[in-house]
Amino acid sequence: MIILGIDPGTAITGYGVIETWGNKFKLLDYGCIRTDAGMFLEHRLEKIYQGVTALINLYHPQEAAIEELFFNKNARTALAVGHARGVIYLAAVHKNVVINEYTPLQVKQAVVGYGRADKHQVQYMIKTILKMPALPKPDDAADALAIAICHAHSRIIDKNINEKR
Amino acid sequence: MIILGIDPGTAITGYGVIETWGNKFKLLDYGCIRTDAGMFLEHRLEKIYQGVTALINLYHPQEAAIEELFFNKNARTALAVGHARGVIYLAAVHKNVVINEYTPLQVKQAVVGYGRADKHQVQYMIKTILKMPALPKPDDAADALAIAICHAHSRIIDKNINEKR
Repeated sequence: MIILGIDPGTAITGYGVIETWGNKFKLLDYGCIRTDAGMFLEHRLEKIYQGVTALINLYHPQEAAIEELFFNKNARTALAVGHARGVIYLAAVHKNVVINEYTPLQVKQAVVGYGRADKHQVQYMIKTILKMPALPKPDDAADALAIAICHAHSRIIDKNINEKR
Repeated sequence: MIILGIDPGTAITGYGVIETWGNKFKLLDYGCIRTDAGMFLEHRLEKIYQGVTALINLYHPQEAAIEELFFNKNARTALAVGHARGVIYLAAVHKNVVINEYTPLQVKQAVVGYGRADKHQVQYMIKTILKMPALPKPDDAADALAIAICHAHSRIIDKNINEKR
């Protein structure tokens, strides 16, 4: 299965694309969709929508995963993230890709096995799991890879539970 | 000129379509795009995107107007409004319709001439300006009409200033 992980933001939307079979993982792509602060909001959102659409067209992920927003963020940040998330959800539904949401705690637990892991520990585990030559950079792309790995783990767990029934 | 006013929300997105020439106004349409709380988020956003696209296809507004978000709202509300705003901006840019933003103060001042006007005063003035047989309902549609009127006023003021130069 191919999974698209997304870390949404109006300025930087990180993405990570992985392939999983059984409990094996392969890194296909990762990076960022960047939009300039000088652009009109609608053009920034259009660039994010087109970028996610292009990733889906290129890699044909069966499923996607995104992080739930922390609600300790302020309203201005939440609005900006909401704008980006809105068009990402739309790009996914237009391509029949289901988006799953995970909390930061779930992501850290899935990747490191410890919900209070720090950023460096998460990135180190991503590097190990995906056999990367260096730590994934920038942070937004690393976060997107972590979310994709988290979704893959949750699929493996679901599968094991179903097989034991 | 035909103006589309929008009051965005994930559950209810109000809309109002007016035509203006000089300082005359004509009501073309108003109402709400409603999405059920039981629907998946992506399907709610797709319904809003399709609804706004359909309004643009039907009335061919040259411009659109939307309210700036109050930042006294909490992060959860801001995220939900952000989701809806994101896909509304996208629908507009996909149809080459520019969206203008106004603060609630600007809207009330444009419609009633008084920034601290209450909801009933705003609705009464909308009824008068657009020669409606009754007060506009529901509130979300009334708010969308108020935003459209506000944008029309700001266009009239711009035009007068330019003509006096």
